[in-house]
Amino acid sequence: MKRSCYIGELGEAHVGRTVTLQGWATRRRDLGGLIFIELRDRSGTVQVEVEPDSPAFAGADAVRSEYVLEVEGRFRLRPEAQRKGGLGDYEVMASRVAVLNAAKTPPFELDKGDAVAEDIRLKYRYLDLRRAEMQRNLILRSKAVAAVTRFLDGEGFLQVETPMLTKSTPEGARDFLVPSRLNPGEFYALPQSPQLFKQLLMISGIDRYYQLARCFRDEDLRADRQPDFTQLDMEMSFVTQEDVLELQERLLSAVFRDVLGVELALPFPRLSYREAMDRYGSDKPDLRFGSSFVDVTDLFRAGAFQAFAEAGAVKVLAAPELTRRQIDELERVAKQNGARGLAWLRRAGDGFTGGISKFVQEQAAALIGRTGVQEGGTLLFAAGEWKRAVTALGAVRLALRDLFDLAAGGPPFHVSWVLDFPQLEFDEASGAWTYMHHPFTAPHPDDVSLFGTPGQGEMRAQAYDLVLNGFEVGGGSIRIHDPEVQEKMFAAIGFTPEQAAEKFGFFLDALAYGTPPHGGIAWGFDRLVMVMAGAASIREVIAFPKNNRGADLMAQAPSPVEDAQLAEVGVAVRDSGAV
Amino acid sequence: MKRSCYIGELGEAHVGRTVTLQGWATRRRDLGGLIFIELRDRSGTVQVEVEPDSPAFAGADAVRSEYVLEVEGRFRLRPEAQRKGGLGDYEVMASRVAVLNAAKTPPFELDKGDAVAEDIRLKYRYLDLRRAEMQRNLILRSKAVAAVTRFLDGEGFLQVETPMLTKSTPEGARDFLVPSRLNPGEFYALPQSPQLFKQLLMISGIDRYYQLARCFRDEDLRADRQPDFTQLDMEMSFVTQEDVLELQERLLSAVFRDVLGVELALPFPRLSYREAMDRYGSDKPDLRFGSSFVDVTDLFRAGAFQAFAEAGAVKVLAAPELTRRQIDELERVAKQNGARGLAWLRRAGDGFTGGISKFVQEQAAALIGRTGVQEGGTLLFAAGEWKRAVTALGAVRLALRDLFDLAAGGPPFHVSWVLDFPQLEFDEASGAWTYMHHPFTAPHPDDVSLFGTPGQGEMRAQAYDLVLNGFEVGGGSIRIHDPEVQEKMFAAIGFTPEQAAEKFGFFLDALAYGTPPHGGIAWGFDRLVMVMAGAASIREVIAFPKNNRGADLMAQAPSPVEDAQLAEVGVAVRDSGAV
Repeated sequence: MKRSCYIGELGEAHVGRTVTLQGWATRRRDLGGLIFIELRDRSGTVQVEVEPDSPAFAGADAVRSEYVLEVEGRFRLRPEAQRKGGLGDYEVMASRVAVLNAAKTPPFELDKGDAVAEDIRLKYRYLDLRRAEMQRNLILRSKAVAAVTRFLDGEGFLQVETPMLTKSTPEGARDFLVPSRLNPGEFYALPQSPQLFKQLLMISGIDRYYQLARCFRDEDLRADRQPDFTQLDMEMSFVTQEDVLELQERLLSAVFRDVLGVELALPFPRLSYREAMDRYGSDKPDLRFGSSFVDVTDLFRAGAFQAFAEAGAVKVLAAPELTRRQIDELERVAKQNGARGLAWLRRAGDGFTGGISKFVQEQAAALIGRTGVQEGGTLLFAAGEWKRAVTALGAVRLALRDLFDLAAGGPPFHVSWVLDFPQLEFDEASGAWTYMHHPFTAPHPDDVSLFGTPGQGEMRAQAYDLVLNGFEVGGGSIRIHDPEVQEKMFAAIGFTPEQAAEKFGFFLDALAYGTPPHGGIAWGFDRLVMVMAGAASIREVIAFPKNNRGADLMAQAPSPVEDAQLAEVGVAVRDSGAV
Repeated sequence: MKRSCYIGELGEAHVGRTVTLQGWATRRRDLGGLIFIELRDRSGTVQVEVEPDSPAFAGADAVRSEYVLEVEGRFRLRPEAQRKGGLGDYEVMASRVAVLNAAKTPPFELDKGDAVAEDIRLKYRYLDLRRAEMQRNLILRSKAVAAVTRFLDGEGFLQVETPMLTKSTPEGARDFLVPSRLNPGEFYALPQSPQLFKQLLMISGIDRYYQLARCFRDEDLRADRQPDFTQLDMEMSFVTQEDVLELQERLLSAVFRDVLGVELALPFPRLSYREAMDRYGSDKPDLRFGSSFVDVTDLFRAGAFQAFAEAGAVKVLAAPELTRRQIDELERVAKQNGARGLAWLRRAGDGFTGGISKFVQEQAAALIGRTGVQEGGTLLFAAGEWKRAVTALGAVRLALRDLFDLAAGGPPFHVSWVLDFPQLEFDEASGAWTYMHHPFTAPHPDDVSLFGTPGQGEMRAQAYDLVLNGFEVGGGSIRIHDPEVQEKMFAAIGFTPEQAAEKFGFFLDALAYGTPPHGGIAWGFDRLVMVMAGAASIREVIAFPKNNRGADLMAQAPSPVEDAQLAEVGVAVRDSGAV
């Protein structure tokens, strides 16, 4: 190869040497008869200088933005006054500038990409990806893939590919369907996750499995979802929850070390689901900052303030001094998240003013004592049914984080485990018990006896979520391997054996042929990389993402197809009236 | 974890130590009051012995085939007379046998899996995968993935994921279609390959890309095809064909070394397409054995044997002594592959008997001299239009290989490059020129001037195939990056600029914004692993394959779905009459 090295690899050692570089012209300027070209490749940018009498001049003179160049020249230090640090200390005095390809003028200025409408960036994604930020994101992602592969291969995990064309199941999210031409009237589904297949691999004796699995869910796309996404999927046999957590901690540490050079402190802190909800109002709390809730239910229990006295829980969050307008905005957040309102107080001396201050005179001292609220500071209350109250206040906590940049003072990355999720949830809508994770999640061994009792809502699952900076980046569980426990689980959620067989058919058959104890986890790989890269959206760490209508604006997918293509696979577009 | 180590890791160092093992009972025998259990995990099998007075006896007594066990006991050498080599030299004297899970009697005996109908194996794939051979295949495949990742990451390749839901294009094979719910009446296509996206990544400046890409083609499934398959996809910028070949040779060598401990000789031998066809009748010749064709066109040119005198080419292949029945079978093969017949001769002294012997008396000495056919040996002839003749004789050559196990005497793995494919082919059916690889393949720089001339059929493409033991395991090319060359290519295959834009739209736009010289290759990963594993079918190296009706017999996919699901995505099943 003609290239001496990537631009980013240039340094002191190359000074005085002739180098050959290849890349794109970010910018070309003419100054005092000289031509200056900023030459860029994926690793960095360096200035190329061309003198009027240089044999490189004719080539350089033809250069426009985004031309593809091969440059040969002497690498040297710039005059001391002009050094800008890093590669900016150096320049290439060109002896040859060859235009390998010309370029049309790009539809937007690449170094102003941040300010460009995202639709334009997505339409010209191949240009958007030339931006340093996007290159950095894709490089980071690739390094994470290599780090994961290296670690898991070293730990005896086998990479196994699971089917992409599989069976539609009524459980979970909506499937993407694929008509089968060889079996007219029948459809494949794209996999929502490899869950059943990875458990089957444990039944097969594969012992340790991993896969960077593409998964598909046809959901209405909220702000930061994609119709297909990538999961780092893992499963292990003969393990306890502790075994899984320990290995995951070493894996995530290795990834942060290899990719970012960041050392994560081990072991990761652990919170129970109950504790996470109770203190932060979230099962994926952002722990880069404090601001935990204080429980004051008892202070109001026997009091005259009826709204609080009768509430299942009264939680309070101490905030800095807030304007009335900020409080209104936070109340809107609380209401959006299920609260009826957001009671508040402003500390004034030994008491409070504003909001509900006239109802809390008896409790004032205790409130100040328990919350430590500063003079002028605000207390924000949520009261009501416990889960509803803490959830609303949890949303307020995150709004406060964004308002005051509370996370900025903390560590750049905070990882924790959330454990002891409920095994079962009572679904008010259907008036029935249902599973919280999936029906194969194993309960805590101490709680199995609660199945079928009034206390089954208290059962803890052997389920765990990996939380990074307030994002759930991983989730998993120990699975049920004992057919008797599986029967109890189905009974608890109201499935008859026949219904269970209908829904999970061949998988339940497989369980009976010698299933080892096993458990696993899946990482939301796009989201993990997003947080590691400090990006604002998973679209920033996916090379060719869809927009929020599920469209690829560059390739123009989806698109209408010829009716003959549809006829071949045995389907027709429905009349819009029939849809 | 409780497990001391995998069974396959046991050895001399463990003798006398107490070990804890976990796995499946392959077999349990009772002998002289003792119980013997063959305990298996993915790494190997060891004999467990349980004495009648052992605390392990009750547990062991409950054991049946395929029960999941945890065994603790002392690892020791077996009595000298009973040692069987390897792990068969040792046994575990159990102090504890815990049944972790029971198992129903499997529907087939796992160690007789080879003899079981493939449909049964596929239906109970989770049991089939327990067989040592399948475990070995999946382990080998996983090691190959890790080796590829390690090598390419080390060489600066970035792993980038390309879209799974993309645009249907009229080129190439039939697409699998996915109806879009958010865009009713529109469809995604599953990708046939990431070809355009990997070229876009080069336009984006990613410089070096790789991906283990799942690809989809809705073709009629021949013996050894799958509707989806895995490609190791790579692309590099600023490279020549030599750069690509050199890197690929190092990559494949690394994979063979890491996975099999086999050193491939470098550099790989190279054949031109013309040479491969001319000597072996195949563009993916099996070179583990010789048996190349001898050209004898000239011997018959002016002669009286009209069928040979007028043939474009007369090729001869020397074979061992063949029975009349074997010759008939080979003639059937020749005819199936386009020949009108298979002329033959048997050497007898200085002349020939049988077949066309009366027509070759003048040429006898030359035929013996050129072919070196042994006394009693057979000469097999193909005559006619060159490509048709060599193709038919190529099929005969492979039939001879299978008949006489000719490859057995050669190296276990023979890798070679086939180069200099034609840039264009004349398609007799449509009476038009078409591309041989794809329309973005770059021609040899010395041949560009032939575009549009009568000699354009002689143009060589910068395309290359990687051939292993007669299988094409990789193929790629240097791509066109010069818009002028691209225009000439489209003109040569009869595309107007408008037609080109319609078919390749956004990709041609992208090419104009500064495309570096680039090229790449894709490996048929399933096939490569199949050959490395010595397996007979790619189904043996895919965990959950489809059968030749595109069906997953275990998960029962594809399947009918609720009409409501179809209504949501805006399609209906067509009346069978309308299909």
